[in-house]
Amino acid sequence: MINQGALSALTAETVPTSYVEAGGITFAYRKFGAESEVPLVFCQRYRGTMDDWDPTVVNGIAKERTVILFDSAGVGLSTGVTPNNVPDMADYAITFIEALGLKQVDLIGFSMGGMVAQHVTLKRPDLVRRLILAGTGPGAGEDTERSRNGVFEVMTTPVNEDKDFLFLFFEPTETSQAKGREYLERLQWRKTDRAPLVTAETIKAQTQALIGFAAGPDTAYPRLAEIKQPVLVANGDNDIMAPTINSFIMSQHIPNAQLILYPDSGHGFLFQYPERFVLHVSAFLSE
Amino acid sequence: MINQGALSALTAETVPTSYVEAGGITFAYRKFGAESEVPLVFCQRYRGTMDDWDPTVVNGIAKERTVILFDSAGVGLSTGVTPNNVPDMADYAITFIEALGLKQVDLIGFSMGGMVAQHVTLKRPDLVRRLILAGTGPGAGEDTERSRNGVFEVMTTPVNEDKDFLFLFFEPTETSQAKGREYLERLQWRKTDRAPLVTAETIKAQTQALIGFAAGPDTAYPRLAEIKQPVLVANGDNDIMAPTINSFIMSQHIPNAQLILYPDSGHGFLFQYPERFVLHVSAFLSE
Repeated sequence: MINQGALSALTAETVPTSYVEAGGITFAYRKFGAESEVPLVFCQRYRGTMDDWDPTVVNGIAKERTVILFDSAGVGLSTGVTPNNVPDMADYAITFIEALGLKQVDLIGFSMGGMVAQHVTLKRPDLVRRLILAGTGPGAGEDTERSRNGVFEVMTTPVNEDKDFLFLFFEPTETSQAKGREYLERLQWRKTDRAPLVTAETIKAQTQALIGFAAGPDTAYPRLAEIKQPVLVANGDNDIMAPTINSFIMSQHIPNAQLILYPDSGHGFLFQYPERFVLHVSAFLSE
Repeated sequence: MINQGALSALTAETVPTSYVEAGGITFAYRKFGAESEVPLVFCQRYRGTMDDWDPTVVNGIAKERTVILFDSAGVGLSTGVTPNNVPDMADYAITFIEALGLKQVDLIGFSMGGMVAQHVTLKRPDLVRRLILAGTGPGAGEDTERSRNGVFEVMTTPVNEDKDFLFLFFEPTETSQAKGREYLERLQWRKTDRAPLVTAETIKAQTQALIGFAAGPDTAYPRLAEIKQPVLVANGDNDIMAPTINSFIMSQHIPNAQLILYPDSGHGFLFQYPERFVLHVSAFLSE
């Protein structure tokens, strides 16, 4: 545990990894940033670890509030087995948050992390003050679209290479691809305590979880009206993984949702426009 | 003409009305705010005059840049006859901008003003640096929706009363209606040089212009891809006049468009969330 005074001097690159035990899991996490009454907890995407958050985004947000990155069960530096469904992933997120002694948090979920964040909010509305749903969807329902043909195959290849991320997260335009390469370079800034890639077993479980959420029993679509918190829904204007229209639909069904769509961008819009995204997130969380 | 140094001390309530002659019209305008290389010119809605801009919005934006409100031909304190089509309205806007000796401006168009701003940008791309399209649409085209039943009748009544604006611009929710009443009060802050209501002749011409844009020869929909400027498209999440889905569609067809939709709000979202809108506009124009 690092004391609060020291937290504001740290960054995504320099913050030591901390550990907390709860629910049979040793959760690895990184907490830093300005002191704030309510910290912002980051729920990571399919196959991602703490090291896959863009340091420019996280450090930018951390200038105004405490941020907490973590690896969930079976992911990165944490122990345990990854659940094969989103509601159980949400339970682990709740377990982790409570293990830190937090009574209320802001949540940001990216992609699969956004699905987890929706379920956390539905399960424990008392625990979530504000919610950010980035590059994610509500599951299948009226008017939703599926990810573009070919996307699933690239997502699920045994090892994702840079070219896969440039295809999945960025537009084919020169501008977007250049921003994508800059993002991939930033992911190498941190040199210590790096989380290992997720295992084949975790990929298999997460893939099942995605399917169960997208078109199965765990979809959040019919329950969106239950989310009473202020929500920021954000996406690129052409997300081929979590189609942009689904973000629009999600924002229409959540009673208090603001929608922001970014130009010339896809799933990785928040890494393509890190400063703009930080500004929008900081403004939303401070309103 | 007021010199630049004095402009930053003025507000929407205190700025004297100026006049400039061009194209056979005496245009009334109000210019104030911080010095900026590129000023922001406001294109007003159907039946609106300079006095219908929310002073909280205009003053907020004016903290960072020069703002210019004006009445177009046949409107408010300006002379002339209102054209019955949007492209001719765009020509008057261009005439006015050039009469001030400006080589490049940022444009914000609200509702019908957004239609005018689209045509200004299409006619004179060199004149427009950045464009904000608030509570407006591209005209009829694939997947667009028409304004809600009953809206047109209220829009076109001879005198629009407060209750009409509360219906047309705000949601039926208690929160939105309360914000609507605050907005209507703010419109009374300015005491001097107030613009008269538009005449029946102007209403008739503007109504024809709306029809010709919405479903006629003047629609901008097929030409949206020609707009190369950075564009901010913004609307409420349930606009019954310029349906929200049309803003989404517009943002999908303009190559470099960012979309922001605001919760629990309709056509008058920018007056419901003046501070939030100012922040988004200022950030967009400064990017």
